[in-house]
Amino acid sequence: MSLLIKNILFPDQSKQDLYIEGNKIHTIGLELQQEADKIIDGTGKAIILGFVNGHTHAAMTLFRGFADDMPLMPWLQEKIWPHEAKLTKEDIYWGSKLACLEMIKSGTTTFSDMYYHPDITAKVVEEMGLRAFLGLSCFDHFNPEIRKGCQQDILQQLTGEKIDSNRIQWTLAPHAIYTVSGEFLQWIDRLSAERNILIHIHVAETEEEEKNAIRTFGASPVRYLNELGILSSRIIMAHGIYVDEEEIAMLAANNVKVVHNPASNMKLASGIEFKFSEMEAAGITVGLGTDGCASSNNLDMVEAMKLASLLGKAWRKNPEAIPAGEIFRSATESGARLLGLHAGKIAPGYLADLALVDLSQPAFTPNFNFISNLVYAANGSCVDTVICDGKVIMENKQVPGEKEILEQAAAVAYKLMKR
Amino acid sequence: MSLLIKNILFPDQSKQDLYIEGNKIHTIGLELQQEADKIIDGTGKAIILGFVNGHTHAAMTLFRGFADDMPLMPWLQEKIWPHEAKLTKEDIYWGSKLACLEMIKSGTTTFSDMYYHPDITAKVVEEMGLRAFLGLSCFDHFNPEIRKGCQQDILQQLTGEKIDSNRIQWTLAPHAIYTVSGEFLQWIDRLSAERNILIHIHVAETEEEEKNAIRTFGASPVRYLNELGILSSRIIMAHGIYVDEEEIAMLAANNVKVVHNPASNMKLASGIEFKFSEMEAAGITVGLGTDGCASSNNLDMVEAMKLASLLGKAWRKNPEAIPAGEIFRSATESGARLLGLHAGKIAPGYLADLALVDLSQPAFTPNFNFISNLVYAANGSCVDTVICDGKVIMENKQVPGEKEILEQAAAVAYKLMKR
Repeated sequence: MSLLIKNILFPDQSKQDLYIEGNKIHTIGLELQQEADKIIDGTGKAIILGFVNGHTHAAMTLFRGFADDMPLMPWLQEKIWPHEAKLTKEDIYWGSKLACLEMIKSGTTTFSDMYYHPDITAKVVEEMGLRAFLGLSCFDHFNPEIRKGCQQDILQQLTGEKIDSNRIQWTLAPHAIYTVSGEFLQWIDRLSAERNILIHIHVAETEEEEKNAIRTFGASPVRYLNELGILSSRIIMAHGIYVDEEEIAMLAANNVKVVHNPASNMKLASGIEFKFSEMEAAGITVGLGTDGCASSNNLDMVEAMKLASLLGKAWRKNPEAIPAGEIFRSATESGARLLGLHAGKIAPGYLADLALVDLSQPAFTPNFNFISNLVYAANGSCVDTVICDGKVIMENKQVPGEKEILEQAAAVAYKLMKR
Repeated sequence: MSLLIKNILFPDQSKQDLYIEGNKIHTIGLELQQEADKIIDGTGKAIILGFVNGHTHAAMTLFRGFADDMPLMPWLQEKIWPHEAKLTKEDIYWGSKLACLEMIKSGTTTFSDMYYHPDITAKVVEEMGLRAFLGLSCFDHFNPEIRKGCQQDILQQLTGEKIDSNRIQWTLAPHAIYTVSGEFLQWIDRLSAERNILIHIHVAETEEEEKNAIRTFGASPVRYLNELGILSSRIIMAHGIYVDEEEIAMLAANNVKVVHNPASNMKLASGIEFKFSEMEAAGITVGLGTDGCASSNNLDMVEAMKLASLLGKAWRKNPEAIPAGEIFRSATESGARLLGLHAGKIAPGYLADLALVDLSQPAFTPNFNFISNLVYAANGSCVDTVICDGKVIMENKQVPGEKEILEQAAAVAYKLMKR
């Protein structure tokens, strides 16, 4: 399979052709003469790296708009958890389908997920053509019996049926330090080292979590993980709001990666002072995520970029903080780096995970600075075409099967809430 | 001219028909039998009030992406002002056209503007079919000579050529207390009372403005206006971030209206603690605005709603603050009220300023709560059809002349920056 994109605008404002062979970018240049199975005319469009959504709970799209404007605990206890307990595999299937559809439509090519039945989500990712890192849930609620069961499940999943696709990898996904015991976390760390798989965990999301950690473990969340001896380059930490200077240094020293989720942090009022610039300055790879649709309500990474930049400027009272180019890199290049993908650059030899943006709209008029327009003026609807692993998975804003996915996902969501 | 919309979803989740005669909503009900000049099938769509963008500088769309991530004063002095000085009437024409196009495409039917050459913007509004309140700029920089000239210009504009359209009204637009003298402000207040026209002014936008006001006038901005004796129901105050409890009471007692602009306040790092809930509780009408594209980068009121709600929850650390329904009312009903329009309700006798939203997209799937989905999940691209003053000005996401507007606006913007 080969693909030639003609006459397309690059983020540096140059216009060139781009030739893809198999799943990789092969050549970039002026008036390329390669023959290709498919040719796309890039006139009036720009090419960007596909977004890497660093923290999602895909199937939670089923909960979109079901419960908003509530404090965290009643929201979880009264609305989310009782219905999550009733989720069937069919729900997960259509919820994940809806999430993948939404991500493709807004230019995401890779996501890192954490939710029930990741094997079902894997099937969906395979069908939809995306790339994903799917977390195997780990909870023990400090109960050795539950822990034993969960460990068996994880080992079974890892040694069981292999995933066919080169686009899907498992991660280990301990929920958080208040739902997973230190002993279990250390077991997960050892397994992750043995098998060379990533760990995806919520850390330092709320003030309450920090206070409880100090009360329960005698240390703030990052210090606690450090004391457990499990901070490593294999950890991807979602949120990471409540960290001080010393903790940033600990994360940097251990090459821990962090994913910022501005929409959910704002909507749940978890905290706003995410230390993006300090972490970047310390050499930490900071990616960007939307979190799940129950809290952030959409999976639009273009919107996430704007929120992260605006929020960063606002709380610091500094309009120069987190400029457009920096947050764009976070949403693409840093995302690829934190997942260990040979992507994150539009250059020969890199994975062909790309999106084409339709410039014929007010948000890109005038187009003095394409990245500024993308981050500050546009939203996910500007994405016209999406290429993942060298294959076109959306063209002219249409994803195959769109109508059925919307109908079926809505139907299972309504049934779930009545169950 | 009459228009019948069949089988459309209302914000209360009911499905009804809506019949428009002339520029007003005539009847709402099930299976209406009226004959109409035009019939729209509302299947798969929802009807909402058109948005009222309470604070814009329309022609500044030409500056989109031209200068971002800069501190306020260098941004103004090095980037904005030198180029504003070179603006021609042709620039204002195409800049306003682009702004109107962008507003229509994202569901805005009325805007309150403040910029150079409002007569040119009036011509554009007339052509594009929108409703607008256009500010006559007032500056004197504390210089009596400049003041005299500006007063003459204003009187000439008000007594000169009448505007043809019932969709356009002038307002008096003193820029701010640091560019317009107290004497001039009092003159503007008297003129506004005599002619019964609104005053549109930037107040209490930055901490620096507050500090300077205390140093120069011995009072914070709102207190200073109160001491000048000009707080009245004819004042629309843009921003209003730096106000304390006593000032909120002053604004409420005088029935002053306020417009919140979250995107520009965040991007310029002007301040985040806008007291939406306190003002609403005091009985103040609080509208919503985008500000101009030089600072907020787009004119999308759907995005402004999300930013206002999320920011309000975030800085208060309260996820229950500014729920979706409240900010939707601010962006529609309150906007209409603060401009004195008989709009702001989808009910017989009210102005037919409406938008239809396309529900066949992930943001509205599932659709447990349409307003939540609109505010938290969607963006302006969900708008399919726009009706202003009873006339359809966009249908199936297409505005007549779109392509030419994008091309011409880009061309004048590039020329302007090279001039």
